[in-house]
Amino acid sequence: MKNIYFDCDLGADDALALAYLLASPNINLLGVGSVCGNTSADQAAKNTLDLLDLGGYTNIPVAVGEQDFRVNTFDDSVKHIHGDNGVGNIELPHTSRTPVKEDAKDMLLRLSHEYAGTLHVLAIGPLTNLAAALESDPTLPSRIASVTIMGGAAMVPGNISAVAEANIGNDPEAARIVFEASWPITVAPLDVTMANTFEEEHRHALLHSTNPVAQAVGQILDFYFDFYTTEYGRRCSAVHDPIAAALCAEGITTDIAPCAPVTVDDTQGPGRGQLICDLRGQRVGWHDIDGAHVRVVLHTACDVAQHLVDVITA
Amino acid sequence: MKNIYFDCDLGADDALALAYLLASPNINLLGVGSVCGNTSADQAAKNTLDLLDLGGYTNIPVAVGEQDFRVNTFDDSVKHIHGDNGVGNIELPHTSRTPVKEDAKDMLLRLSHEYAGTLHVLAIGPLTNLAAALESDPTLPSRIASVTIMGGAAMVPGNISAVAEANIGNDPEAARIVFEASWPITVAPLDVTMANTFEEEHRHALLHSTNPVAQAVGQILDFYFDFYTTEYGRRCSAVHDPIAAALCAEGITTDIAPCAPVTVDDTQGPGRGQLICDLRGQRVGWHDIDGAHVRVVLHTACDVAQHLVDVITA
Repeated sequence: MKNIYFDCDLGADDALALAYLLASPNINLLGVGSVCGNTSADQAAKNTLDLLDLGGYTNIPVAVGEQDFRVNTFDDSVKHIHGDNGVGNIELPHTSRTPVKEDAKDMLLRLSHEYAGTLHVLAIGPLTNLAAALESDPTLPSRIASVTIMGGAAMVPGNISAVAEANIGNDPEAARIVFEASWPITVAPLDVTMANTFEEEHRHALLHSTNPVAQAVGQILDFYFDFYTTEYGRRCSAVHDPIAAALCAEGITTDIAPCAPVTVDDTQGPGRGQLICDLRGQRVGWHDIDGAHVRVVLHTACDVAQHLVDVITA
Repeated sequence: MKNIYFDCDLGADDALALAYLLASPNINLLGVGSVCGNTSADQAAKNTLDLLDLGGYTNIPVAVGEQDFRVNTFDDSVKHIHGDNGVGNIELPHTSRTPVKEDAKDMLLRLSHEYAGTLHVLAIGPLTNLAAALESDPTLPSRIASVTIMGGAAMVPGNISAVAEANIGNDPEAARIVFEASWPITVAPLDVTMANTFEEEHRHALLHSTNPVAQAVGQILDFYFDFYTTEYGRRCSAVHDPIAAALCAEGITTDIAPCAPVTVDDTQGPGRGQLICDLRGQRVGWHDIDGAHVRVVLHTACDVAQHLVDVITA
């Protein structure tokens, strides 16, 4: 069982990732921290609590995290993608449970001591909470087994600028701190998350499941599919956050995932928010670069969407 | 016949491009400007004069251009790629002809008046001369029919940094001026120039030609192939500059070449020198973006190397 601190801005695809984590046999979800991004940090925490309690996971604590980015301003501007409430305008059954008193970064720091050496971090929103934790305690990486992140665009266009993906681009200053810290990172950029799609057949499999969280996620994705129809030319969606979750759970395999030097553009220039992955010299065969601590997942070797459905509806 | 001002830092692959232009039936090469890059501006002018006169083109004038970049310093650091003299350490027969008195930017400006509306610019080195001409006379674009450039890396790694290609990255300030000017640009980035290779069979076809310029270029490329062996795992080279020349001469066809918004990162950040091509929203089919004036050539629909050989050895 992998001990997990899960940081998210839940979020339509975050909801799918959460449903997957809850159903995964090898995941011990110790706590969830919320962050602004797809919705506000408060709303993300509410959505997470609603989904957890809908599934009966009433013992998993949720901590509210950073309400704003370090330099950019959170402006709740992706309601056209995730709905006004972050979960595709679906009214989930509302739990009376509330977030814990500690904030997300303190939850992460506490868990890093309680599970020193065995705690894995899964971060699928802006990296604001993780950066705050690193600034509070720079020794944090020494107690973390691994960090898995959804973010960036290595060799494909970005989604909030020509080169910037939302999680990195919303808070480049935080992302730079996180990617420069000395912990082993696996990152799933748009290269792999846009290449994998969740289709109507997969969504219907969730809707027809007996798992109430799966059913809710199937409903939530309806709105998300509307947005992605423009991108793909059919009703489906990218598989952003769930790929990071499946990598963390070791449920999927990859065939192109070199360790490479990675940095973040936190200038105010036209490349602001770009996750710069140095993939030079890989033409004769993908290989790890000496000293690099970030594994950049460029291609999966399996049917990710079917894997998600199989685990969630098992 | 297309009237051409040709700006180059000759250069092993520049030599191949020049041999192609001289042999092209539809090119009227009015003048050549040299710029620092693959070698110094003085050496590039010498190499160009030697090749021109070797082929009997003693009436084509060569003007020396900018000796240094706008902010970066020219440091003649690619001798391992292009040889100490820019032409693979081959001793070309040296002509006694010397560059004209006017500098490259003045040649470009003069030609733009003499051939107003019909002058095409082909630039395969850093864009320092073109930027200088634009600053001298901002009305220049109104007299230019088209600009074709080799430079940038749209969705592949750079070659002087993770994201920067040498022509743009050596002088980002100049490149930004050139790409922001209101003239129609066609740019061949590493995406297409690295995907096309010049093989030993092509080089041998040049060596065995009766064209003395072709023979010289076949010899020059030997050293260049040594460098690219590491990149490709076999003796061959990329086809950087000749692709821009062939696009300018309309000798090759493309199948992916959308007009897209393009800018240059001229910050001092980690993305410095990147040609940022906004290729978002092209998943449902490559298409031109309204208002964009830069055509980004991503894929050729023909055998470029064979076309070069066919034209040069005809």
